[in-house]
Amino acid sequence: MRMYDMILKKRGGGELTPAEISELVSGITDGSVPDYQTAAFLMAVYFRGMTKAETAELTGCMARSGDMVDLSSIPGVKVDKHSTGGVGDKTTLIVAPVVASLGVPVAKMSGRGLGHTGGTIDKLESIPGFQTALSVERFYEIVRETGLAVVGQTGNLAPADKKLYALRDVTATVDSIPLIAASIMSKKIAAGADRIVLDVKTGSGAFMKTVEESLSLAKTMVEIGGHMGRETAAVITDMDRPLGEAIGNALEVREAVETLRGNGPADLVEVCLELSANMLSLAGKGEIDACRALAAEALSSGAALERFRRMVAAQGGDPRVIDDPSLLPQAPHRLSVAAPRGGFIVSMDTQRIGLASVVLGAGRETKDAPVDPSAGILLKVKPGQRVEPGEEIAVLLTSREETLAPARERFYDAVVIAGERPAPVPLLFARVHQNGVEWLDNRVN
Amino acid sequence: MRMYDMILKKRGGGELTPAEISELVSGITDGSVPDYQTAAFLMAVYFRGMTKAETAELTGCMARSGDMVDLSSIPGVKVDKHSTGGVGDKTTLIVAPVVASLGVPVAKMSGRGLGHTGGTIDKLESIPGFQTALSVERFYEIVRETGLAVVGQTGNLAPADKKLYALRDVTATVDSIPLIAASIMSKKIAAGADRIVLDVKTGSGAFMKTVEESLSLAKTMVEIGGHMGRETAAVITDMDRPLGEAIGNALEVREAVETLRGNGPADLVEVCLELSANMLSLAGKGEIDACRALAAEALSSGAALERFRRMVAAQGGDPRVIDDPSLLPQAPHRLSVAAPRGGFIVSMDTQRIGLASVVLGAGRETKDAPVDPSAGILLKVKPGQRVEPGEEIAVLLTSREETLAPARERFYDAVVIAGERPAPVPLLFARVHQNGVEWLDNRVN
Repeated sequence: MRMYDMILKKRGGGELTPAEISELVSGITDGSVPDYQTAAFLMAVYFRGMTKAETAELTGCMARSGDMVDLSSIPGVKVDKHSTGGVGDKTTLIVAPVVASLGVPVAKMSGRGLGHTGGTIDKLESIPGFQTALSVERFYEIVRETGLAVVGQTGNLAPADKKLYALRDVTATVDSIPLIAASIMSKKIAAGADRIVLDVKTGSGAFMKTVEESLSLAKTMVEIGGHMGRETAAVITDMDRPLGEAIGNALEVREAVETLRGNGPADLVEVCLELSANMLSLAGKGEIDACRALAAEALSSGAALERFRRMVAAQGGDPRVIDDPSLLPQAPHRLSVAAPRGGFIVSMDTQRIGLASVVLGAGRETKDAPVDPSAGILLKVKPGQRVEPGEEIAVLLTSREETLAPARERFYDAVVIAGERPAPVPLLFARVHQNGVEWLDNRVN
Repeated sequence: MRMYDMILKKRGGGELTPAEISELVSGITDGSVPDYQTAAFLMAVYFRGMTKAETAELTGCMARSGDMVDLSSIPGVKVDKHSTGGVGDKTTLIVAPVVASLGVPVAKMSGRGLGHTGGTIDKLESIPGFQTALSVERFYEIVRETGLAVVGQTGNLAPADKKLYALRDVTATVDSIPLIAASIMSKKIAAGADRIVLDVKTGSGAFMKTVEESLSLAKTMVEIGGHMGRETAAVITDMDRPLGEAIGNALEVREAVETLRGNGPADLVEVCLELSANMLSLAGKGEIDACRALAAEALSSGAALERFRRMVAAQGGDPRVIDDPSLLPQAPHRLSVAAPRGGFIVSMDTQRIGLASVVLGAGRETKDAPVDPSAGILLKVKPGQRVEPGEEIAVLLTSREETLAPARERFYDAVVIAGERPAPVPLLFARVHQNGVEWLDNRVN
């Protein structure tokens, strides 16, 4: 079928056949379909959506458009984990060693931060000596030896997705659930794991601003995973406030280590236990509740911390940072932020706080810009807490002193303090499995 | 505003400001907006539409994107006429001399045929010697001397429309009423006439298949004309059957001359009187009914024929063809088409009949292909008429004998003959003026 006819079919609400989608993805990958036709097609998809079958087919074709990682040389059921992106989200640093310590191998490819959200690779690279660019052979070897490794993307994964994403980014067609789902899942499928757990963030700091949208995205991705023979589960978690108390690369490594030591902030621990439990359960380690108990035990016993130490050493990092966090990059400049008035912290606009951390140097506005590993924000209070006027509510850290004042302005813009205590809000909203949705009622503050 | 934000605004159903539309059209014209962003924008317009103000602004900006024809050196109220395209539509050849003979100057730029529809320029060029590529000065001079001239497009009219149309054509975004209306009207505005009459065709041979769509397009264009200070009226006329009995360039010239002589087929005469009356009335010659009487008189008196003769001579054509049509190109091959069965002609799929004439050589599939001026179809019956088995229902004419058999197949596919007399159908549906819609009840057969 000609591309023109595919645009017309989609514009009219028709369903493309697998052969048509395969032709479309080939044409996009090899450049024979011009960008203007793809752009018109994407906008038609924005308005008309895609059926489950179309979305699964698109995912599969995009996954197969480049290298497919083969993890079969690693024994065991390999489980991957993906977050849709947040502020203060250092869960991979905790969850991966937890499940690895319980015999579930994690061979994970992670990304860098962009815009207001951070990236696991930037966080790990704040550990002196830590290598994220490894050969495929060394990557597999570390996973076989230690049970886990986290590297940057290797090879040419899902090039069709890269092309499509670049075009969506400039044609206002990013926020289409089937396109988002196919984009994420194509990379996860190509990355080779047997099972996938998705952390779908919802709220002011997340790409999906409402629970309804997040649920729709989660369901679509879980369906795709099932369709492709990669059993997938999703957890919908809160990103209407930052996760934990540390935002910024070295600051988050430090908080992750504290959490692996059993001293993490309650919200972070809760999300990590939930994600670990889902990963363990998908890997066949039992029901969710039993798996959650195993994960909690891995934290309290120090087994997970030990795994993390082994991974750091295997990937060339200095494992002494685990016992002596002062060996991590330290920011030369800091500014204490005081509450401008007394009252309750009603809300923290997470995207704005993320952007304040970018101003300090913790993130990047454009791809390939450098990050300041020491920069970031330490939150001293979270929404729901009462503060006195002038009380310290956060500390800003940076290598560039001149960023402190503008970052503080942004931080103040993000925080609402009022007279009445806000109602507690959910931290975990729902689990989405092949068999349906399980609503959770896990509230904080 | 960035193009991205304009796409986003339109995608969300927002209204672009005049400044935004001006920026958009400049960016498309000078190439600074990439085609993929324009394509996404066009698809968003397909789904969201454009307001009256947006459509008028788009029209104005596209008109001003190139040369603006200045007819002010020609005295009188210049009236243009445009048809949305049909099969057997030779009305310009009749209407222009009718109104010119009544003191309304017509300085008309016409197009060539493409696909199943014919073009006035191709028809005129079947007259030996007739020139359609004239200098602007000679064009104006002929109008001043004879009251009318019909030429191909001169200069660089509405280049933004050319670019947009080319992109719409390959991205399945042609059939959007505001985009069609802006495209047609931008060229008409740039072509310089003071008043505009539109013949919006409806039915199987027209771009708009239903009366509702045609009415919507007509209203939009009439509003744009008013908004731009070029009073515009539209007539919705039938194109569910070919107009008149002749299809093909020289054949249509001959039928036009017969009509100017007062011997035209009833449907063609009726449409020509209606269009002439609207043009005359817009030019200030009185109410529609009075103008229709003037037009009828111009046909019966021979005044319109005399004007046509003067125009042919002024544009270099051989005026003897008017009295001796055997001087027009004559097809060396002809085939009589017999009714395969007896009964009533229920319908003639106009597009298919147009495509049969293209097979014979009367039209072109691609721009710049040559046409055979002698080729075409003479209809011997029209829908509603009774035929006996074997009775001649049409004659096919061509220079290429091998096209006769396939053209006959197509012709047969287009014609439905059945036992019951079909109900009469409207020929003129409605007039659309600044003040509203006037429904007409002018039925044939």
